[in-house]
Amino acid sequence: MARDSHATKARLLEAAFTEFAEYGIAGARIDRIAEASGANKRLIYVYFGNKEQLFDVVLQRAMELGAESVPFTVEDLPGYAGAIFDHLLARPALMRLVAWRQLERPGATAAVSEAYQGKISAIAAAQREGGITRDVEPTDVLTLVLALAQSWFSAPGGPATDADGSAWQHDRAARHRAAVVEAVARLVAPHARRPRPS
Amino acid sequence: MARDSHATKARLLEAAFTEFAEYGIAGARIDRIAEASGANKRLIYVYFGNKEQLFDVVLQRAMELGAESVPFTVEDLPGYAGAIFDHLLARPALMRLVAWRQLERPGATAAVSEAYQGKISAIAAAQREGGITRDVEPTDVLTLVLALAQSWFSAPGGPATDADGSAWQHDRAARHRAAVVEAVARLVAPHARRPRPS
Repeated sequence: MARDSHATKARLLEAAFTEFAEYGIAGARIDRIAEASGANKRLIYVYFGNKEQLFDVVLQRAMELGAESVPFTVEDLPGYAGAIFDHLLARPALMRLVAWRQLERPGATAAVSEAYQGKISAIAAAQREGGITRDVEPTDVLTLVLALAQSWFSAPGGPATDADGSAWQHDRAARHRAAVVEAVARLVAPHARRPRPS
Repeated sequence: MARDSHATKARLLEAAFTEFAEYGIAGARIDRIAEASGANKRLIYVYFGNKEQLFDVVLQRAMELGAESVPFTVEDLPGYAGAIFDHLLARPALMRLVAWRQLERPGATAAVSEAYQGKISAIAAAQREGGITRDVEPTDVLTLVLALAQSWFSAPGGPATDADGSAWQHDRAARHRAAVVEAVARLVAPHARRPRPS
């Protein structure tokens, strides 16, 4: 019984992830999630509450999986950014889920903020030890590193989303990844040499 | 007559911008746009076609306004990034509009790609002249600069969107802006000094 319930919940969450990534919260249909998962619609409400609560669980779970797959390595932020890129490249629906949250659940950030606080503290410690530049505040280091790692996916109509739809071409992705790693290395370098005006 | 029609169109586009930024394409209601602009609902279809076409016009117009307000200065990319940040900070609805496009109109990128091509060519020329590093391809330079400029607004649940909602605090915004400018300066510097392993 407990095992059955566990399997049903997992199927429901899987179907909900797909539905929310495609349609967002307002556009998602509990009916479709029930059908796709082969579970009873009423069970969804019993297990997860309303649609917004289901979305929060789906996102929270995706975030936890991400944190497990991509450990935060403060001593190697370029590598961390590259690993985030790889994680997102393999899961195009994940960025959509995150984008829907920003648009439809802008207030629901408490849990996320908590996860970031530990990273910010680690960056501050690395700055004190001289491993990361002090020219940029810890919270901005994190924001900028994440922005660089995600740039390929969130560039609004940018070159990443080529008109011919070849954005996902393997070779171009690999070259963009290298650019991300280089950009983060430059961002966090303790001593940046600035070009002198000629 | 012509003047009346011009004013009506302007009011319609203004109302449509607000409606789309708030609800996206699927969630937007032509009824609400008509009511908010005081125009006849039928006129919207006459002037702009269907809802998707109206959205495209609204976004295109916002992009053109942005390009006019923030000229692309390839010789000063840090300043360009700072100016984009200022533009977005003054128009929080704009990032929402762009995010909806990515989610609901992912294919409609042709016009945008065209606008980017000129910038990419300018970056390539600056690289040949030695003003910008050649370690990063022109298309990636642009993607990364834009990502840095927008990081404050698109960081998914990041530190920019503080739990206490103070993200828009003026002082914090100014400090993040400085971080963006510094990050872009480091990214494009012709000769980055890498820390040597100790």
